[in-house]
Amino acid sequence: MKAEIVSETKSHGGRQLVVRHASKACSCDMSFSIFLPPQAERGSALPVVWYLSGLTCTQANVTEKGEYRAACAELGLIFIAPDTSPRGDHIADVEAYDFGKGAGFYVDATVEPWSHNYRMWTYVTEELPALVAAEFPVDMGRQGITCHSMGGHGAIRVALKFPERFRSISAFAPIVAPSEVGWGQKALAGYLGADERSWRRHDCVALIEDGARVKDILVDVGTADQFLETELRPELLERACRDSGIALTLRRQQGYDHSYYFISTFMADHMRWHSERLS
Amino acid sequence: MKAEIVSETKSHGGRQLVVRHASKACSCDMSFSIFLPPQAERGSALPVVWYLSGLTCTQANVTEKGEYRAACAELGLIFIAPDTSPRGDHIADVEAYDFGKGAGFYVDATVEPWSHNYRMWTYVTEELPALVAAEFPVDMGRQGITCHSMGGHGAIRVALKFPERFRSISAFAPIVAPSEVGWGQKALAGYLGADERSWRRHDCVALIEDGARVKDILVDVGTADQFLETELRPELLERACRDSGIALTLRRQQGYDHSYYFISTFMADHMRWHSERLS
Repeated sequence: MKAEIVSETKSHGGRQLVVRHASKACSCDMSFSIFLPPQAERGSALPVVWYLSGLTCTQANVTEKGEYRAACAELGLIFIAPDTSPRGDHIADVEAYDFGKGAGFYVDATVEPWSHNYRMWTYVTEELPALVAAEFPVDMGRQGITCHSMGGHGAIRVALKFPERFRSISAFAPIVAPSEVGWGQKALAGYLGADERSWRRHDCVALIEDGARVKDILVDVGTADQFLETELRPELLERACRDSGIALTLRRQQGYDHSYYFISTFMADHMRWHSERLS
Repeated sequence: MKAEIVSETKSHGGRQLVVRHASKACSCDMSFSIFLPPQAERGSALPVVWYLSGLTCTQANVTEKGEYRAACAELGLIFIAPDTSPRGDHIADVEAYDFGKGAGFYVDATVEPWSHNYRMWTYVTEELPALVAAEFPVDMGRQGITCHSMGGHGAIRVALKFPERFRSISAFAPIVAPSEVGWGQKALAGYLGADERSWRRHDCVALIEDGARVKDILVDVGTADQFLETELRPELLERACRDSGIALTLRRQQGYDHSYYFISTFMADHMRWHSERLS
C-alpha cells in the first residue's frame, strides 16, 4: 500500500482505521480515517460516504464523536473522513482558528505562501479518491458525500462540480454561500486573492445560480446554532434550490447547536439517506 | 441549585449537561456529566445508570465517545458520569497515569497526603447521589451502575456494598481483583498503605469470597484488550461468581480492545440490560 495504517481498531463489528500517506497535492503527509463495516470482510466492493469536516477539526473529531459506525455497520457503508488542511511544521500557518491549519476550505490556494501546500480541492477530489479506490474495497460507482460547517461548503461544491460522481448529498450546518459570510470572505480572499470573481466557482449558491445541478440534498441545521444567521444562512441555499428545481430537504432542528452533540443525533438519519440512494 | 451548570447541549432529543459543584468529600470543585433523556421533560422521575470511568479519564471521555445517548433517549434512562479523582492545583499528584489525578480508584485514602482529598468512595456513594437526588428528576429506587476498567473495580464494589441500591450491574473490561494485579496493588498500597488486610474490602473478588452477593452482572471484555491477562483477569470474577451463585454473563468479544471503540460498540446492549431491570 502507498499508505501506512497508523491505527486499526475493531468497532461495531467493523474496522476503524487511521491512515497516513505522502500527499503530492499538499506536499506533506496527510491522515484520514476510514471505517470498513463488517460487510467489507465478504470481499465485494461497498458504497462509500465521504465526510468533510469543519473548522479546527482533523479526521479525529467525527471519528471519535460522530456516532456513525453503528449505522454504517447496519447499512454496509464505508465512511471516510479526510483532514481539513495540510499538516506539518513546514506548512504555512497563522494564529487563527478560521484560516491556515485546520481551515483549508477545500480550495486550491493561488496566493503565496498558501499555494505551496493548501491544495485541498485537488486532495479531496483527485488524490485521496484515487488512493482509496486502489487500496480499499470501495465501489466508486456508489459514492455519497456529507459534511459539517466549512465542510458543507466543500462537500456541496464538490457534488455540484461532479454530479455524476455522487449519488447522495447531505450536510450538517453547512456554509453554503462563502462569498456572502465572514468566514468565507476571509478564507477566499486569503487563499484566492481579493478579486471576488475568482470566488464564484467556490460558492455553492452562486454555482447553482450559474446552472450547476444535483438531484436532491438533505440538510440539517440547529435553531440554536450560534453561527446560523451569520455564517451558515441556509435560507440562501433554500432559495437557490427552489429557483433551480433542486429537491432540498432542509430541516431546522429545534434547540440544537453547532456541535457534535447535534451531528451525532442525526447521523443515523443521514446514513439512511445515503444508503437509500447508494444501494 | 447547589451546583452550577457548566454546559447544556441538546442531543438525541434530551439534554446533555456538565455540572460543577463544591465537594465536601474531596475538598475541591468536582464536575460530572448527566444526560436527561426527552422523557425527563414530562416531569416524572426516571431510572438512572451511573457510569464510573477508567484511568486517565474525566467525565468527558464517555460523554463524548460513549455513544449512550441514543439508547438512553429510546429507553428513558438518565446517565451520570462522575470524574475519577479530585481536581485542582492544590490537589496532591504524582507523575503517573495510574495514580493520583485521574486515578482515584474510588477509595477513601487513609495515607498522607492523599487522605485530604482522595475520598472518591464517599463522593460516589454518598455526596454525589444526594446532590443528584435533590436536583434532578431521578428515581433513586431505580438505579443501575456500569463502568470501565478502573471504574469496574469501583462499580462492582459499590454494587456489592449496596446490593439493595442497584437493581442492575454491568461492566466494560473491569478490574475485578485489584489485590492481585499491578494497577490495583499500586493504588491500594498508595492510598491505603502496605497492610494488605485493608485492601480486602476494596477487592470485588475477595468481597464475593467473603459473602457479598448481587443477583446478576453483565461483563464485556475484548479478546484483544492489552490489559486482559495482566490487569483485568475476568476469570477470577468468573470463578467467584460460579462458586457463589451470582449469575455472571461474561462475554469475550472477539478482536476488541480496551478503548471507547469497544465500549461504544456494546453500550446500547448494556443500556438495554439496565432498562430491563429498572423498568
